[in-house]
Amino acid sequence: MSKKDEPVRPEARLPKGLFDTSASELRATADMLAKIREVFERYGFEPLDTPAIEYTDALGKFLPDQDRPNEGVFSFKDDDEQWLSLRYDLTAPLARYVAENYQSLPKPFRRYQVGPVWRNEKPGPGRFRQFTQFDADTVGASSVAADAELCMLAADTLEALGVPRGQYVVKVSNRKVLDGFRETIGLSSREQDVRWLTVMRALDKVDRLGVDGVGALLGAGRKDESGDFTKGAELDRASIVTLTSIFEPVDDPTDKIAQLDIRLRDSKVGQEGRAEIEALWSLFSAAGYEDRIRIDPSVVRGLEYYTGPVFEAELTTPIKDERGQSIRLGSVVSGGRYDGLVERFTDEKVPATGVSIGVSRLLYGLKTLGKIPAETVQGPVVVLVLDRDRIADYQKMAQCLREANIRAELYLGESGMKAQMKYADKRGSLCVVIQGGDEKGRGEVQIKDLVIGATLTSIKDRDDYLKKQAEAQFAVPEAKLVEAVRRVLARHKA
Amino acid sequence: MSKKDEPVRPEARLPKGLFDTSASELRATADMLAKIREVFERYGFEPLDTPAIEYTDALGKFLPDQDRPNEGVFSFKDDDEQWLSLRYDLTAPLARYVAENYQSLPKPFRRYQVGPVWRNEKPGPGRFRQFTQFDADTVGASSVAADAELCMLAADTLEALGVPRGQYVVKVSNRKVLDGFRETIGLSSREQDVRWLTVMRALDKVDRLGVDGVGALLGAGRKDESGDFTKGAELDRASIVTLTSIFEPVDDPTDKIAQLDIRLRDSKVGQEGRAEIEALWSLFSAAGYEDRIRIDPSVVRGLEYYTGPVFEAELTTPIKDERGQSIRLGSVVSGGRYDGLVERFTDEKVPATGVSIGVSRLLYGLKTLGKIPAETVQGPVVVLVLDRDRIADYQKMAQCLREANIRAELYLGESGMKAQMKYADKRGSLCVVIQGGDEKGRGEVQIKDLVIGATLTSIKDRDDYLKKQAEAQFAVPEAKLVEAVRRVLARHKA
Repeated sequence: MSKKDEPVRPEARLPKGLFDTSASELRATADMLAKIREVFERYGFEPLDTPAIEYTDALGKFLPDQDRPNEGVFSFKDDDEQWLSLRYDLTAPLARYVAENYQSLPKPFRRYQVGPVWRNEKPGPGRFRQFTQFDADTVGASSVAADAELCMLAADTLEALGVPRGQYVVKVSNRKVLDGFRETIGLSSREQDVRWLTVMRALDKVDRLGVDGVGALLGAGRKDESGDFTKGAELDRASIVTLTSIFEPVDDPTDKIAQLDIRLRDSKVGQEGRAEIEALWSLFSAAGYEDRIRIDPSVVRGLEYYTGPVFEAELTTPIKDERGQSIRLGSVVSGGRYDGLVERFTDEKVPATGVSIGVSRLLYGLKTLGKIPAETVQGPVVVLVLDRDRIADYQKMAQCLREANIRAELYLGESGMKAQMKYADKRGSLCVVIQGGDEKGRGEVQIKDLVIGATLTSIKDRDDYLKKQAEAQFAVPEAKLVEAVRRVLARHKA
Repeated sequence: MSKKDEPVRPEARLPKGLFDTSASELRATADMLAKIREVFERYGFEPLDTPAIEYTDALGKFLPDQDRPNEGVFSFKDDDEQWLSLRYDLTAPLARYVAENYQSLPKPFRRYQVGPVWRNEKPGPGRFRQFTQFDADTVGASSVAADAELCMLAADTLEALGVPRGQYVVKVSNRKVLDGFRETIGLSSREQDVRWLTVMRALDKVDRLGVDGVGALLGAGRKDESGDFTKGAELDRASIVTLTSIFEPVDDPTDKIAQLDIRLRDSKVGQEGRAEIEALWSLFSAAGYEDRIRIDPSVVRGLEYYTGPVFEAELTTPIKDERGQSIRLGSVVSGGRYDGLVERFTDEKVPATGVSIGVSRLLYGLKTLGKIPAETVQGPVVVLVLDRDRIADYQKMAQCLREANIRAELYLGESGMKAQMKYADKRGSLCVVIQGGDEKGRGEVQIKDLVIGATLTSIKDRDDYLKKQAEAQFAVPEAKLVEAVRRVLARHKA
């Protein structure tokens, strides 16, 4: 198809950070998404889909967990020289959608969306350039009841996916609490923005560095194992003690709230945050969710973006990777309130709160915990081709099986019997259908049960062997093909 | 969140040719995809997913129905200056996948894939820049049985979607037949490539222009209604007669094949094509599909790309648009054999054949034919908020309903009773739950049936009115909330 000479052969490979998804991974993901969808629908959310491509200016600079705006986005110019981007999350397109359709939407507007998003970042372990998010957002509701609902939704979702109560926790805090701490330690001025960012980054590392490590990063700085020195925020001792108090384990939420009340005594915004947490907790208690949700002021969740309650859910059972090493999976569900997104387009301030599930991470977590049900799709019954001139007969058999709702296929390659059997094995077939000249002459087909067949060599007892052998391969009249295949498939029903 | 002054407000809009998808459209699509998936799985195809982004050189220049290679693709540079593109179909990524994983794949390799593809084209009526394809391909099978199977798959798929036999047709031809005609009329040389392209384009327009219009385009040229003149291929009379013979309606496939045999007597490639069509037909006959499939040498299907059998399925019931105008929907399923794709990467020639469903077009067709089942997802039960101080009580009610697997939500806005009722209407709720101070005092909740409620004003008879009124709104003890709501929902079960 080349126009001139033979072109240089391209290499068959994917760009870094991008991956193909296998059949079993896809099926497990589809199962998982269906269960999540059911919970989100039960909470009254409606599905919405938006295209992958948006105007860059409409997506804005809201990439979470990213300091440098507009970095990390795949962008390209349209014919009319306007910049387009691939969506980097599902929230920015939602903001565009809501601003565009504000008049006609029910308010509050509750939608869920699932789909791929793209980040033009350096890929690394667990960091991909395309991944799937599953989001639910409520737009136009300022009440903390909207935030509370999303925390309960997160808990219900994990339980619907088979994670038992007690093996996950939804941690809740409020961005205003951190703002209150900022005020309390005297870093509120605009000039201290960068320093505060350093503080937030330090706080966000507690899982990896521990409280002492964070303390070092809040103070003079910290030398890591490799000897590299990270400069700290250079806070004084008192400020560090105040800040690291958020990590103090206090199980009783009432005590935790009282502690915040004292620490944030002199901060108006901090008190607002504390009051919102208190209100959230009363909602959780009323609905009976105290055993699933925890107040945890150390939840940071990104650097900009959120404006009120923030929350994240994590699996609490220790997770090990393929080599048996304990790994930190991080949060599988996360979210919070962001009241500024839609305002970018309109003059109206539209309160919004949302939750996002990292689909691959959650799937990985569930898989590691053994919560992914075994594959239910069986390999197809393969009709072997012994006599190529009679391919129409074989295809008709495959078609008969399909009409009977049996997953079946005709062997479509050109190899001999042995390779055809290997093919059936590789496809996970439970049985194959065979009809050579002799069988044809007798109006019969042979059914070979590959599962029993595979056990034959290990059978010691003669009678047992002969019995199994008769089950492993047997002939039936052509008219009984469907019935006989059904019988074999039923033997091995999961 | 702006760093400096207030930025210019971006406009909330989508780039041309891109669209949001509503809840009902998404649900109808999901239903349709599930049914298609079931048929494809029954035929033994396995799902695969590939990322949206690929190396541009790996996708190659195989954009079907596109004369100018590499046009129509969204492309951008990676950090390392290599060109990346959004996939424009699902076949090019399959070729890359097969070339990359050839050793480990079962052969033949049968996969299906569903997902969005992107075309950077001028959007127009029915032409989008993002749309969904549903493909099945068999790679590594040169047998026409593989092609035949895909034609039968197309028929089974349409029937699974509710299109009765007789209201669709799968039309089959072979690229080699057209090549044979090319040879027969003496246009085989390389120098005639452009002229042959003009011929193929003319043939492809028969649905719009009729046989006479095509004849004009094959000869001197054609003036359209607007007076614009399109230069023709300038074939002589005999060649035009030979070519337009492909449009002759011949119902009996044996006659059609015999006709091809005569017309393509002197062309080796043409005879090959004729023989493949004959072989296909014998497979269709054996499997009992003669009433669903038609031999039709006028099927062109794209200009390059295909190398053997080609086929397309269309709905035969006349379809009208919203204004009652008859419209040509075009083919809803199409495909064919393409033996050159994988060869681009490796030295090996790997035969392949595939089928592709244009998901939105098919959905549109099914919708117009009334084959899309009514929406089964009911609007949520809305718990109204009459006393904002008691929001925890209301949220608990919503949570109780959800625990009972009832789709429910708490009204999360700040408006009064009337707006809340309007909200519930807009959400399609069947009933709302109301608890004011009086009901609370009595330990009761009110259930208001919005469906019956809406009929009250039109009831003339007093007794009937009173009976319906009692059904439309009634009080139950708090503990009976779930039971009462269930009762109301059951009244209106579809």
